[in-house]
Amino acid sequence: MTDTKVAGFPAKPLVLDRMGTCVRAGTRLLGLLGADIRHADLAFSFNNQLLSYWERKYLYVPYSVPAEELENAIQGIRALDILACNVTFPHKVAIMNYLDEMDDSTRRMGSVNLVVNREGVLWGYNTDSMGFMDALHATGLMDDLDSALIYGAGGAGRALATALAAAGISKIWLYDIVEARSHAIESRLSHNGCRVCAVAPEDLPHLRPALIVNATPLGRGEQAGVSPLEDLRTGQDARLFFDLNYNPARSRFLQQAGTLGVPAENGLRMMCYQAKRSIDIAVDQVPFDWFYTALRTKEIEQHMVAAGSAPAATP
Amino acid sequence: MTDTKVAGFPAKPLVLDRMGTCVRAGTRLLGLLGADIRHADLAFSFNNQLLSYWERKYLYVPYSVPAEELENAIQGIRALDILACNVTFPHKVAIMNYLDEMDDSTRRMGSVNLVVNREGVLWGYNTDSMGFMDALHATGLMDDLDSALIYGAGGAGRALATALAAAGISKIWLYDIVEARSHAIESRLSHNGCRVCAVAPEDLPHLRPALIVNATPLGRGEQAGVSPLEDLRTGQDARLFFDLNYNPARSRFLQQAGTLGVPAENGLRMMCYQAKRSIDIAVDQVPFDWFYTALRTKEIEQHMVAAGSAPAATP
Repeated sequence: MTDTKVAGFPAKPLVLDRMGTCVRAGTRLLGLLGADIRHADLAFSFNNQLLSYWERKYLYVPYSVPAEELENAIQGIRALDILACNVTFPHKVAIMNYLDEMDDSTRRMGSVNLVVNREGVLWGYNTDSMGFMDALHATGLMDDLDSALIYGAGGAGRALATALAAAGISKIWLYDIVEARSHAIESRLSHNGCRVCAVAPEDLPHLRPALIVNATPLGRGEQAGVSPLEDLRTGQDARLFFDLNYNPARSRFLQQAGTLGVPAENGLRMMCYQAKRSIDIAVDQVPFDWFYTALRTKEIEQHMVAAGSAPAATP
Repeated sequence: MTDTKVAGFPAKPLVLDRMGTCVRAGTRLLGLLGADIRHADLAFSFNNQLLSYWERKYLYVPYSVPAEELENAIQGIRALDILACNVTFPHKVAIMNYLDEMDDSTRRMGSVNLVVNREGVLWGYNTDSMGFMDALHATGLMDDLDSALIYGAGGAGRALATALAAAGISKIWLYDIVEARSHAIESRLSHNGCRVCAVAPEDLPHLRPALIVNATPLGRGEQAGVSPLEDLRTGQDARLFFDLNYNPARSRFLQQAGTLGVPAENGLRMMCYQAKRSIDIAVDQVPFDWFYTALRTKEIEQHMVAAGSAPAATP
């Protein structure tokens, strides 16, 4: 060994102690699986804070998986005895092909963001819809929202449209650059008697939705600074702008809300509620006091753009 | 949500802060992959202490994989973008079937305990042999060891026999309950001009090796309290008993060394050196000061049964 002295080597290496206590042999892994999860730092911090309730028994880690490796990755979850994975862009729909079990409501939603490995049997769930509705209720603006426009009809958009329809929002417009995707949701949700419309680009300036949701990746990562909202008139009667992205905290889309004087909510609180719901399903109920304290850590609070007050005590 | 107040909920939840800082989105995973890794708590603690040198950039986690899932697990390492895995019982030999690249010395050894994923290409290494020799040198007894008896001719036994032969030990006896395994090593190492003998059970009481190594799982887990050494005469001229197991710290085998007044070393220091060697290969050189400090943490020190002095400054 040829190592030499390290300049600035600490007399009492605190980092050593901290890292040494994160994992033990019996620690079960949960994770976030997506093609590019670099924007999701806070999800790891928050999930691990929640999971620390069961000291060192669970840990939440990143899994970067490109589309062509998805099937091997799912076999890997089973083979490597990973307990659960949240699933994000672009796998939420494709993953349904590789799961063993799903309840009817998840199957109808057509999108999965949580896989739970129960002794080798892989179950699919959608906690995006739950987390979104929890966060929406927490804004205190729910009563004002009788119509919604959702940008993006991928996995997240599907889940949100289904949840809003179930919550009784009377009119939902869907817009996606791949028009077939919004039409697919339109035809599915119309069976439930909800008025869901897939809209074309030229329709957008004429809509006046109460709620506008960005469920696209526009605004984060390589598309930072980009917003799906091209004509500000679309937002002029809105009561709430909701961006599922949370990094950066105030996207171009949410800055547009500010310009219009409309309350804005980024995706951080939704991610937090979604994380709690996922852990409730995959592991056990996270006590609400624990959840609330994690929600109020400085790290989380400083990234929230709360539409209403400070983090709400109840969803 | 139906959660209620938690009794004893801490005013300042320290665990929350600690766990929240273990992982971020860009953290790369290394792991230990084996059928039963419950005995390996200290490996997680030690590896994560070493990896904390690169703050939150790497994390060492457990992967429990039964034999029939090994191939899917290896595909999973690639698909889930896991950076590296140490490999332990019973996969060290079988895993060689699923790797892409191996250097000649590893191939000759016939055993792999480290897989490194370099952009989808899986490389195999053996750091058991390096860690074992590092630990052996650290005892200060190396000059007294002219002959060795190794119990167990599985993955670890193969690596150790190869390393001892390369180090010039003139006589090596191998014993395994599956006799064919020791014969396989005998014929391979004999090509190198070393005197290696596969021995039968009835030979054991007549041998007088200077070094006796337990490279079987006897002594840990479900086989705690069991020793491979049945006749104490075999150990009466020994200069060192070396048990690759380290949990419990003083196995039945090492207690027998005590009875005979022979110095004893458990596998903890070897695991530590092996961990450093693995990280050196998979990530980058761990500075020796950092290694030495981790080696001297109370958690590690109290599980060592050092044959020589306190943890040595140089291997």
